[in-house]
Amino acid sequence: MTFEYSKRVPQTDNDVVGEILEAAANPAVISFAGGLPAPELFPVKEMQKAADTVFETEGQTALQYSNAIGEKVLRDEIVKLMADRKVTTTVDHIGVTTGSEQSIDLLAKMFINPGDTVIVEEPTYLCTLDVFRSYGANIVGVEMDENGMRMDKFEEALKAHPETKLVYTIPTFQNPTGRTMSLDRRKEFVELANKYDILVMEDDPYGAIRYEGTELPPLKHFDTQDRVVYMSTFSKILAPGMRLGWIVCNLDVLSNFVVMKQSADLHSDNLSQHIIAKFLEQNDIYKHIKEISDLYHHRFELMLEAIKNEFPADAKYSHPEGGMFIWVELPGDVDTMELFKTCVEHNVAFVPGDSFYPNQPKRGTFRLNFSNVDDETIKVGMKRLGDALKAALQ
Amino acid sequence: MTFEYSKRVPQTDNDVVGEILEAAANPAVISFAGGLPAPELFPVKEMQKAADTVFETEGQTALQYSNAIGEKVLRDEIVKLMADRKVTTTVDHIGVTTGSEQSIDLLAKMFINPGDTVIVEEPTYLCTLDVFRSYGANIVGVEMDENGMRMDKFEEALKAHPETKLVYTIPTFQNPTGRTMSLDRRKEFVELANKYDILVMEDDPYGAIRYEGTELPPLKHFDTQDRVVYMSTFSKILAPGMRLGWIVCNLDVLSNFVVMKQSADLHSDNLSQHIIAKFLEQNDIYKHIKEISDLYHHRFELMLEAIKNEFPADAKYSHPEGGMFIWVELPGDVDTMELFKTCVEHNVAFVPGDSFYPNQPKRGTFRLNFSNVDDETIKVGMKRLGDALKAALQ
Repeated sequence: MTFEYSKRVPQTDNDVVGEILEAAANPAVISFAGGLPAPELFPVKEMQKAADTVFETEGQTALQYSNAIGEKVLRDEIVKLMADRKVTTTVDHIGVTTGSEQSIDLLAKMFINPGDTVIVEEPTYLCTLDVFRSYGANIVGVEMDENGMRMDKFEEALKAHPETKLVYTIPTFQNPTGRTMSLDRRKEFVELANKYDILVMEDDPYGAIRYEGTELPPLKHFDTQDRVVYMSTFSKILAPGMRLGWIVCNLDVLSNFVVMKQSADLHSDNLSQHIIAKFLEQNDIYKHIKEISDLYHHRFELMLEAIKNEFPADAKYSHPEGGMFIWVELPGDVDTMELFKTCVEHNVAFVPGDSFYPNQPKRGTFRLNFSNVDDETIKVGMKRLGDALKAALQ
Repeated sequence: MTFEYSKRVPQTDNDVVGEILEAAANPAVISFAGGLPAPELFPVKEMQKAADTVFETEGQTALQYSNAIGEKVLRDEIVKLMADRKVTTTVDHIGVTTGSEQSIDLLAKMFINPGDTVIVEEPTYLCTLDVFRSYGANIVGVEMDENGMRMDKFEEALKAHPETKLVYTIPTFQNPTGRTMSLDRRKEFVELANKYDILVMEDDPYGAIRYEGTELPPLKHFDTQDRVVYMSTFSKILAPGMRLGWIVCNLDVLSNFVVMKQSADLHSDNLSQHIIAKFLEQNDIYKHIKEISDLYHHRFELMLEAIKNEFPADAKYSHPEGGMFIWVELPGDVDTMELFKTCVEHNVAFVPGDSFYPNQPKRGTFRLNFSNVDDETIKVGMKRLGDALKAALQ
């Protein structure tokens, strides 16, 4: 039979991301394209111990159906994590999700009618763009600089689009740029959201992984009108395979979120919720996060050094103080997809910048990941990349 | 701020299901309202052993990101389960989901445009109705009898609604009725789907839990045109807390499903996928299913006996050969919600039939669950229910 899909299914004739992943999956290719944590730091033994305790003390509970808002043992632990992040909240304001991707999807589903305007940083996380598009959003991008979203441009966008429903931002170690919104801009951002009365989706998967500079409170910390929905995840600080994230938000938003969540998957994996809650009870998560940050710091420095040595002198790049990504902008008018093909011929890959732009991409941009590659791979891969850039830019 | 939700968020002023759950949660009330498996049969020790093996042999893999289609080790096991269910398929046709609820949600999202017509059994699983409504479906119910959906009424509906996009059915031990579609009707059902060229969503969460009668192949077995999307789950045969289900379908449908799945939660819990795959490798699942079926059989018989002894003589009820539910239809014109209130006053609860109807409910109907209540509870609760019915029907 011929299948007639709904308008929500993307037209996939031009699957750029698929092609990139396919090229990057070739074993001969060194890939800086991924966004994966370093698996050698997964606390496998500690997680096994936590799982054993769960099976021995609450096995039947952990294997039974749970509730859509999430297990209280885990939400109690999240309250503590939030306090450490300078957000004072209570367990009633916290919902557990099947990872940040689900948080983004359900919030988009519950707020965006077809044609609604949403504002994002330009560039931004490509899966968020896919989700917003699937609900028919009109996406407006706002220019960034090294201190995150530009507030003058943000207000311009708000004035030009008074119908704006919400703004989505990754303030800390942004994906794909690695940039962090400055303290002043955080305050101004919340003031503008208040002034123009829009909802804020704050996505903070990387904030905890800081290896340099001073910690900055999330936007939620400055939120006096309960309009910021804060999202985070265990994917980067513990284990992405367990697909557990959370949101912190207004009670009315949460009660509707729970209804949407129930229709999406009833609730998140109950066994994994109990295991992570137990892990947090049995271990010092900050000791673990320190190990991750130290390793990523080392890999970042190595990649930075290679950029300085191997890249054209006028290439620009971000200097993230944490997270997993460096953003590169090449001088001149470079066709990024052509450049990508040249690099793959040199057996090295990245994610071309185009996918991260809601509308017109900035040419000659790409994202490098340093969290999931060892020293030797960074050295060899960055040499190849430097050679490929020289070949392409001749 | 005032939150403006999208049209997809249900208007929850009248949260009947919430009220029912609240009433049933009162510890003084014996509840036959739930749909939970018997937790005392969860294979906690075996699951712990499987988890230990996973942590010891593939811990890093299980904790890392995976792919949207699901882990191959689990999909390989599902191929075997499907063969036992008389469906010959290959691993390429199988996608892992975060439980059947997600299978239903994503299929609805990818096929239903607002205003599209979908056909369902009347009554049917209430969460499916919620999902279909959230995507703006026009839902047409088809009458059932003791042999499942009536084929004459099905064809009438297809003729009356030539625009029909898909039909959703639970052919075996249906929720809420416990009824099973007969062999002849299964064949006729697929013929009608072919003739009117519509997609079939076959939901089979309970089929494996048979304690009486002859096993019947799923609709997918009779599907010569690859139009049946078969859905099942580990929730009823292993552990609902781990939120893992699967679909078996056409390759084109699956490739689009995977795109939707990626936007929904990237992939299902990878640790749980590895644990269940390992459990299936280390244990005889059919021995475990036999234990479940035997216990449910015993509880069903006990509830049936109580119905015969305690209920009004002219009450009708289904006689399921498996699964978890009995459906009751009372004589006369009974206001089900009033009846429910009387029963709660007698400290016993069920799910009133109204929620299971897409449009006009049949009055005086309700669903009883027997899988999650022990002998004494069944005896005491059914006595209370009998007394309440007598009081209400006087």
